[in-house]
Amino acid sequence: MEDQISKISDAANRMRISSIEQTAKANSGHPTGSCSAAEIVATLFFSEMRYSVKEPRHASADRFVLSKGHACPILYAAWEEAGLLTREQVLTLRKLNSDIEGHPTPRLSFIDVATGSLGQGLSCAAGMAYTGKYIDNASYRVYCLLGDSESAEGSVWEAAAFASYYKLDNLVTIVDVNRLGQSRVTMLGHDLFTYAKRFEAFGFNSIIVDGHDVADLLKGFDEARPTNSNYACTLKGKGIEGVEDKDNCHGKPVTLDKAEIIASKLENKTTKNLWELENLIDDAPEVDFEIGKVKMNSPPNYQIGEKVATRLAYGNALVNYCFGWKFLKNFSDVSNSTSSDKVLNKYPQQFVQCFIAEQNMVGVAVGMSCRERTIPPASTFAVFFTRAADQIRMEAISFANVKFAGSHTGVSIGEDGPSQMGLEDLALFRAVLIIKELLLLVLDVPTLLLFIQTEKFERKNKVIRQTNEDKYLLIGAGVTLMIF
Amino acid sequence: MEDQISKISDAANRMRISSIEQTAKANSGHPTGSCSAAEIVATLFFSEMRYSVKEPRHASADRFVLSKGHACPILYAAWEEAGLLTREQVLTLRKLNSDIEGHPTPRLSFIDVATGSLGQGLSCAAGMAYTGKYIDNASYRVYCLLGDSESAEGSVWEAAAFASYYKLDNLVTIVDVNRLGQSRVTMLGHDLFTYAKRFEAFGFNSIIVDGHDVADLLKGFDEARPTNSNYACTLKGKGIEGVEDKDNCHGKPVTLDKAEIIASKLENKTTKNLWELENLIDDAPEVDFEIGKVKMNSPPNYQIGEKVATRLAYGNALVNYCFGWKFLKNFSDVSNSTSSDKVLNKYPQQFVQCFIAEQNMVGVAVGMSCRERTIPPASTFAVFFTRAADQIRMEAISFANVKFAGSHTGVSIGEDGPSQMGLEDLALFRAVLIIKELLLLVLDVPTLLLFIQTEKFERKNKVIRQTNEDKYLLIGAGVTLMIF
Repeated sequence: MEDQISKISDAANRMRISSIEQTAKANSGHPTGSCSAAEIVATLFFSEMRYSVKEPRHASADRFVLSKGHACPILYAAWEEAGLLTREQVLTLRKLNSDIEGHPTPRLSFIDVATGSLGQGLSCAAGMAYTGKYIDNASYRVYCLLGDSESAEGSVWEAAAFASYYKLDNLVTIVDVNRLGQSRVTMLGHDLFTYAKRFEAFGFNSIIVDGHDVADLLKGFDEARPTNSNYACTLKGKGIEGVEDKDNCHGKPVTLDKAEIIASKLENKTTKNLWELENLIDDAPEVDFEIGKVKMNSPPNYQIGEKVATRLAYGNALVNYCFGWKFLKNFSDVSNSTSSDKVLNKYPQQFVQCFIAEQNMVGVAVGMSCRERTIPPASTFAVFFTRAADQIRMEAISFANVKFAGSHTGVSIGEDGPSQMGLEDLALFRAVLIIKELLLLVLDVPTLLLFIQTEKFERKNKVIRQTNEDKYLLIGAGVTLMIF
Repeated sequence: MEDQISKISDAANRMRISSIEQTAKANSGHPTGSCSAAEIVATLFFSEMRYSVKEPRHASADRFVLSKGHACPILYAAWEEAGLLTREQVLTLRKLNSDIEGHPTPRLSFIDVATGSLGQGLSCAAGMAYTGKYIDNASYRVYCLLGDSESAEGSVWEAAAFASYYKLDNLVTIVDVNRLGQSRVTMLGHDLFTYAKRFEAFGFNSIIVDGHDVADLLKGFDEARPTNSNYACTLKGKGIEGVEDKDNCHGKPVTLDKAEIIASKLENKTTKNLWELENLIDDAPEVDFEIGKVKMNSPPNYQIGEKVATRLAYGNALVNYCFGWKFLKNFSDVSNSTSSDKVLNKYPQQFVQCFIAEQNMVGVAVGMSCRERTIPPASTFAVFFTRAADQIRMEAISFANVKFAGSHTGVSIGEDGPSQMGLEDLALFRAVLIIKELLLLVLDVPTLLLFIQTEKFERKNKVIRQTNEDKYLLIGAGVTLMIF
């Protein structure tokens, strides 16, 4: 045990050195936030987690989400220590054409979701844990490392409420409380008791540990679940002389001599351990459908000229879409208005109620989709997708395969007033980079049916009315077509 | 006292009747969420709050924010009971051209901020309370009524953390825990203890009351501050026979005979009381500047061809902008990266640190600006404004005068990777309805100066290079101009 603790501590220091070198070579990046998390990540990777170095995306492998994405040098260093990456590779940090980016993205084999925009990791991790517990029924666990600054983001608390509501006892959250934010001391500083109290109020078990003490960390991870959470008291820039626990060092590389001082303190100076990792438990099921080939069960039997309430058409379409897809899940918080409760009624096992928390709904969907085991449609009023604008942006960077289904678009919701009107969401979705397949269902079915449902839409325009005497070209979409 | 309680209870029932009639006449709207809050609002309006019926926006009047905006019929009914509106006026609910809209907007004299998109009210209320305590140094209080469903929104917890961090003991929060969300039971149902525990963990005092018992409500409001919070156990549709505490009645009007049943139970059948309201304490100072005429102290002394870091130019501009404006406040969470810490250093009393919680930052700014006593610039990385997309949209509907200053736009932040890149924010801001003055500072100052700073920008295009041999027209903005 003593030997194990010393081995992990040395690994943490080697990862520290690597982080310093990566950022020094890049002349940018975040060595200090990496160093505060060195022991946490080393303990996770070399004692706690069950994964395959050769196959990081193995369906049964534990997942790790680095929510504090700017600390990615320590993550790259962990995979270097584990033997997946070389020092040469991690030293390409922040170089053009390198996948070792300044913030993690799934361009790397060991990363499931892009992070960097803070406060989103826990929702994604909760989505993964939900998938593990309720869809895969597998024993893999999900670890999420948060920074203390980012716990000021409300989306963290949306995710915490979701995790405890669904009793995700396969989710382990660690908050790296290093006291210092980007520009100054965080709201709570080193007040770990208040962090613990807040997470406890949201249904977590809380264990406070010394985040630089490997023995304490090991004990913390062993302690009670479900929905375990560790609050690790750490020092920003831990180990870096003249920088440790100092303000105004966020995002600033340090000189290489700082790495040498850390190296001189190593007990085990060998550059790499041969780790005997605990084997993963291979119990995640095979996926029984082909991603990317989702088709409706049958097209709805509407007739041109018929009047159909958009919300009903929407519910019908969702039910058709969900038909028969064992792994397909649907999300909603306004389900009786959007008629997505039709899915709840017909396929209750395919419905995840996310309540009124859109940021988390999208984050959970991203987490659920990231291993290509589900294709979740996220469903709410179109206008409320703007609440999750940043999560949707990160969904695209994550190459996730989430279907966004927004109801009540445009001016059709007049009586409720402008706060309920979906208009700006169109600009949002148009601006998001479409990496894989970002399908926007903006309810192109107007109350009065203008198209035959079997027509194929090519993502181009369609001419609805045209005469030889036309003088003006009117362009519309969704419900604005009603003006014709 | 007995008489007072009975008078308020009767007022609550008259307001209930009015809510039923408003929504029945409109054939849409939310009588059930209104009825659950009837005693809460009646107690606030006819015992607790200090305001002027004739001048609802009086600088020294207590503020009331109905965060659960869909319950506006009960708010309109309160102002009807107070004598500002007539029954005829409130019966124009949801009619075209009526200001009695389906969700509250400042088109009405007694509403400061638009609500309806849930979870935003507490941030706005916190901004008002901050203004009252730290800028006006006045004794008015801010009351915010939340629904229980909306407390699943993370922005509520961002606001709670802000309120306790700044010790806003002039803010009173009430959560109407009526158990039922739009489509089903909320995450916590009637578990008021967990609500209390959560708010307590975020620094609030918690008092659980029976939300239909006026005596209990009066006692609750009298109890300890600072940062008081009441959790009122209520029944959705309270008083409406066959609807009370029943699922699936959200947003559904009921027939008028339900109003008659309530009327038959009234002790005091007179249609209106003459209320002797507690006078407001007229101690809010005069505003000593003209809104809408903010100018920089002096333009920066840059030369064409000179290289200036955008973050430095940004900080310089903010300092100039803030010069001498007693009531001006600046917000930031990445202040050392954006150089807005220059404001902190030079005008510390004009700097409100909002930490990493963009939704709350914008909400607070809206709350601060709504009585035209401050012109807050909200400042962060441009990309992180997408986190607050819905708050920005509601800012426009609120006619607020917030200046959004986003740094690190476009592809200039390449080494940090796509999660930090401001691109989609342009689409967001372009799509938001500009009601008053929504100024987007997207850092048009490139590293290499191309314009003279004294040139006037007309919100049109500017031709940078042109020759007689030109074959192509290139259009760019912000840092993309660097490609020229």
